[in-house]
Amino acid sequence: MTSRRNVEDAVLDAARACVEAFGIRRTTLTDVARRAGVSRPTVYRRWPDATALVADLLTRELLALLDRADDTGGDGGDGDGGAEGARTARGRLTAQAEGLMREALHHPLLTRIIDHEPETMAVYAFQRLGTSQFAALDLLRSGIEDGQVDGSIRDGDAEGMARIVLLSVQSLMTSRRLTEDVLDEDALVAEARRVLDGYLAPEGGR
Amino acid sequence: MTSRRNVEDAVLDAARACVEAFGIRRTTLTDVARRAGVSRPTVYRRWPDATALVADLLTRELLALLDRADDTGGDGGDGDGGAEGARTARGRLTAQAEGLMREALHHPLLTRIIDHEPETMAVYAFQRLGTSQFAALDLLRSGIEDGQVDGSIRDGDAEGMARIVLLSVQSLMTSRRLTEDVLDEDALVAEARRVLDGYLAPEGGR
Repeated sequence: MTSRRNVEDAVLDAARACVEAFGIRRTTLTDVARRAGVSRPTVYRRWPDATALVADLLTRELLALLDRADDTGGDGGDGDGGAEGARTARGRLTAQAEGLMREALHHPLLTRIIDHEPETMAVYAFQRLGTSQFAALDLLRSGIEDGQVDGSIRDGDAEGMARIVLLSVQSLMTSRRLTEDVLDEDALVAEARRVLDGYLAPEGGR
Repeated sequence: MTSRRNVEDAVLDAARACVEAFGIRRTTLTDVARRAGVSRPTVYRRWPDATALVADLLTRELLALLDRADDTGGDGGDGDGGAEGARTARGRLTAQAEGLMREALHHPLLTRIIDHEPETMAVYAFQRLGTSQFAALDLLRSGIEDGQVDGSIRDGDAEGMARIVLLSVQSLMTSRRLTEDVLDEDALVAEARRVLDGYLAPEGGR
């Protein structure tokens, strides 16, 4: 078990290094196998091509981002997270979104893909939800339900609201290049917070 | 003058018909010239390749959508647009956004591109603003400034706020496939309204 898991992680680490160095289009499974120190069949057995490998890599990286966001925001119930409203479920949710956005904006793999190979993101922006988006939706839905219980989030279908929150955060995060001439990172994150707070707050509840 | 304009529009009309029938990748300048009833050099003189032609076509179609949205929303100052808040600049702006979204969701060219060739949209979602996005920003900025005068929109840098509104509407509009299992068209448009109203309203002003 350990070795199988280790090999998979080693291959994904090697894939990340290759993509960060050369880009997705110029990364081959042979390069990745060499860098990971495993045989080519070991890689081919698990991934038919580089596209499938990069998809799994992106999923792993995004799930790790989500995990860290969940840890920070989720533990912030005592209000020590710096966010004025972290004692409420809405405060925790917006703090998690903010933490995730800040990390994503500096993530070498994500920024490389957005800047140089944005067509990789197109499927998950326009056509269908991917694994990490479903994981984000689970977190968001339960955060929204918590907020509907503690009164910090308005009533409404939690799944529908989670979709809107996911797409809003994802869009502002991945379109960094379309706002950076007028909004620096702090300003962008502050505006994202306003979007979420305005959308989620009960009428008159901000 | 008239003939030059007419030729250009005829070529763009032919390009739209080709793309709607065959997709961007399978549309050639030769097909377009034949369908428009003009010579190939006439087309090649103006557009180096099909990608450039489709970019101009998309710009024309999106500017037409914006024009119609501006007409309806802009004239709605007497509140006859059906939106409860159309007497305010914020009401007009959200009514325009709603009208534009509804039209875009049924636009044959746009829906075809989003469903089948989303990589065409990737540049304008992740990398840089295009001509029609700048035109939308002009409309949004002046609507936001009007709202800051009539008190229906909170204070803040109008250009930064216009970017956030543009990206929010664009994202919800183009990611239709990622929400349609839980939000039908009316529900999606209603949620987009909540996003904009919540983001633009002064504190306690909804």
